[in-house]
Amino acid sequence: MKARLLDGASLAATIRAEIKQAVAELQQTRGVTPGLATVLIGDNPASAIYVRNKRKACEEVGIRTFSHELPASVSQSDVLALVESLAAHPEVHGILVQLPLPPHLDADRILSAIPLHKDVDGFNPVNLGLLGVKGKQAPFAPCTPQGCIELLTRNNISICGRRAVVLGRSAVVGLPLALMLLARDATVTICHSRTANLASVTREADILVAAIGKPRFVTADMVRPGAVVIDVGINRVEDPKHPKGYRLVGDVDFDEVSEIASAITPVPGGVGPMTVAMLLRNTLIAAQRQSQAA
Amino acid sequence: MKARLLDGASLAATIRAEIKQAVAELQQTRGVTPGLATVLIGDNPASAIYVRNKRKACEEVGIRTFSHELPASVSQSDVLALVESLAAHPEVHGILVQLPLPPHLDADRILSAIPLHKDVDGFNPVNLGLLGVKGKQAPFAPCTPQGCIELLTRNNISICGRRAVVLGRSAVVGLPLALMLLARDATVTICHSRTANLASVTREADILVAAIGKPRFVTADMVRPGAVVIDVGINRVEDPKHPKGYRLVGDVDFDEVSEIASAITPVPGGVGPMTVAMLLRNTLIAAQRQSQAA
Repeated sequence: MKARLLDGASLAATIRAEIKQAVAELQQTRGVTPGLATVLIGDNPASAIYVRNKRKACEEVGIRTFSHELPASVSQSDVLALVESLAAHPEVHGILVQLPLPPHLDADRILSAIPLHKDVDGFNPVNLGLLGVKGKQAPFAPCTPQGCIELLTRNNISICGRRAVVLGRSAVVGLPLALMLLARDATVTICHSRTANLASVTREADILVAAIGKPRFVTADMVRPGAVVIDVGINRVEDPKHPKGYRLVGDVDFDEVSEIASAITPVPGGVGPMTVAMLLRNTLIAAQRQSQAA
Repeated sequence: MKARLLDGASLAATIRAEIKQAVAELQQTRGVTPGLATVLIGDNPASAIYVRNKRKACEEVGIRTFSHELPASVSQSDVLALVESLAAHPEVHGILVQLPLPPHLDADRILSAIPLHKDVDGFNPVNLGLLGVKGKQAPFAPCTPQGCIELLTRNNISICGRRAVVLGRSAVVGLPLALMLLARDATVTICHSRTANLASVTREADILVAAIGKPRFVTADMVRPGAVVIDVGINRVEDPKHPKGYRLVGDVDFDEVSEIASAITPVPGGVGPMTVAMLLRNTLIAAQRQSQAA
């Protein structure tokens, strides 16, 4: 492998240590402990693991968590009532509703009930709209795109003036990340399932981001030699040799692409740990802002 | 000239006739006359002309207008009070605050005071965020980008799967248009003043949009032969031969580019008249929705 490894696990540990210190300072100077409320609905095992990991990461840096678990059969109005009570709770600075929700619930309405100043996941469309506008700041950037930007900037990879190609246009990753790269003066192209001659488009990239959820979709022929490759995908593929019977791979064929890229994120240990670190940071910032306003 | 002319003046006239009929139907079936409130602050002569043209266009299709003119010295709280009274006014279905505002006023706060269902200019960041998300609909798309899309679709120019390059990333034109093209399945690239090798990027475009406000900036060498070119710019250039001492030109060097493009919008008479037609349509839709909800 020739590419430099963009080690998200190690960078996330550094950031968590910085957050831990800032949490301690906030407690000393203002007597405020940042608080994150997590709302987990139903019994999706992956969601349960994600929420548990986020709560554990919070506790390790001194962020208090408020755990709410609701059955899959819960009514829309009961969820809304819970979110509203958390919105009013003075010790809850951030609210995270773990997605996906059971199909009978209206995710848009529930997420919209989270007030902007507690929307530490950054999923409100107001945030999305402001991310691409130079000179304006979204209340909170969504965690995964923010983690990608941080991986670039903390590794001294310049964004301004470079061609960034984002593969995937979801409202939670691809689209906000494209807007954040644009606001940082990249020339941004957004590709998706309807893009013609995809490999010729992705080969234009100085910075290529894959966020489509297709295992090892990005092969070496799609990457310009020397490009920086950020792999957002986390996909399970069967592997009888592994104890669990599967292993995790990204949207990028790491073995191939790491031979021609100049830098690349691994999966696992790349973007994933950064997402959790950015959630902690958003929660810290929410607590700082709310304690200033009070 | 070899390119097909995308005649916005003629298409806008067709659309205004459609709107006039729909306005008449709304009056007959529900007894509702669509109403647009215009707020003009200060004595910017261009703004005064724009507002007068918009009001005239409204009246020609049967939309009632409510004109509010305030001195440049008006206070922020007086403007907000006016917007709030218009927000509550049952005969006002759309509110337009003409930009730019005098520098002592906070445009963001004033625009945010317009409720989404009356925001017929579509400048609220919520609209911007939703424009690029497939399967979600923004309450109102901003008028100029919407006019560009309409110019393409009503001229049977397909967007899906084609490469669209948007030159300019303003929150009122470039960025929302890029998002609207993306939601219609174009592969979208956004360029701006920091883009390197601009001509090589713009030459990738099947559909090239110029929205930067620089007279005749886009020259033939920046355009792929056969591309569709949409010119959003309206710039004054000195011309002693014209009675007014100036004439209007776009961001595209029309004489050169019309020799190699497959289709092109003129300036004036291209995007400009479409913007006003889309304002009328947004106001009609606002009235239809509000009379259904009542």
